[in-house]
Amino acid sequence: MTDKLADQIAFLQEIDRLKGVLRATPIADNSRRENSAEHSWHIAMYALVLADEAGPEVRIDRVIRMLLLHDIVEIDAGDMPIHEVHDAEAHAAKERAAADRLFGLLPAAQATEFRALWDEFEAAETADAIFAKTIDRVQPLLLNLANGGGSWIDYDVTLDQIDDRVGEKVMRGAPALWHHVRARVAGFFASQAASV
Amino acid sequence: MTDKLADQIAFLQEIDRLKGVLRATPIADNSRRENSAEHSWHIAMYALVLADEAGPEVRIDRVIRMLLLHDIVEIDAGDMPIHEVHDAEAHAAKERAAADRLFGLLPAAQATEFRALWDEFEAAETADAIFAKTIDRVQPLLLNLANGGGSWIDYDVTLDQIDDRVGEKVMRGAPALWHHVRARVAGFFASQAASV
Ligand SMILES: [Ca+2]
Repeated sequence: MTDKLADQIAFLQEIDRLKGVLRATPIADNSRRENSAEHSWHIAMYALVLADEAGPEVRIDRVIRMLLLHDIVEIDAGDMPIHEVHDAEAHAAKERAAADRLFGLLPAAQATEFRALWDEFEAAETADAIFAKTIDRVQPLLLNLANGGGSWIDYDVTLDQIDDRVGEKVMRGAPALWHHVRARVAGFFASQAASV
Repeated sequence: MTDKLADQIAFLQEIDRLKGVLRATPIADNSRRENSAEHSWHIAMYALVLADEAGPEVRIDRVIRMLLLHDIVEIDAGDMPIHEVHDAEAHAAKERAAADRLFGLLPAAQATEFRALWDEFEAAETADAIFAKTIDRVQPLLLNLANGGGSWIDYDVTLDQIDDRVGEKVMRGAPALWHHVRARVAGFFASQAASV
């Protein structure tokens, strides 16, 4: 009993480091970059608020669990900005090693359970994982709309690239949401073009 | 449909401000104070990891929902450090006004649902709310153990005060957890006394 609790607390202390992992996207007021811990909270709230956008087969509480733990691997592997050119296979291997180490801090049964949820998220094949990915992809768009362009400007991103890298995934999980958000994003890019 | 989504997105954009609300407790590496958004993520992970410490009547997914949204009122009302002397009734009134405004941004049915969860957490009478409060109280203790004393030192807190202000609440929701954490906290205070 005591050992189990000690392991769980060691894990909970270790994951505090996620608060120091910075993402490419600034927070809405543009005062600083978002960290992955507060991002994980925000997307869990997205899932809760936007639950009706998911298909009837999606179990929102499982989606929330996935979203809460999916970025923990970044403690070892770092955040990989979606618009940055990178070796996807090498980064995926780094994330798997991170998952081994970090979830491995937990008691065995819980380590297995969390790892399975993380693997499911990464594979993006189940309805829950597809919706979770949708949510994870859509939140940075809305932050960039709030902060004045954020990582789109830093990475010289075009609307076509957003359609490719984000749109397809959001369409899969929540088509009405994509329709709504895409119109706002297109409006932003049109206003940028008009002001050049 | 579109109006509903627009209201939900307005709420999700507004709650981004929770990332700027600072708490009394520093993060584990003692580099800076914790903000309420990343705190909310961390305690949701605490609930998930420590679910076995809850009684069998506790529904962890409801606890997680409560924990995710319970601090949103701080956007308007601020964080009230547990060891700071304050007018509890005045602060509670500020928080209720904040709940009215912030949850009121959502579509009506969802506003009612979230407000009911928040009221339930605040009342701390149901098994889910009692466990949620337990988790919310225990995380800062473990942060202070990691960061070297943090808000205990800033607020000149004694072990007796922790027993009073935190221990009783944690005992109610998770006695074995309190037993474990209390021993660590007592060890910290003993080592402080020895080094004076
Ligand atoms: Ca991510």
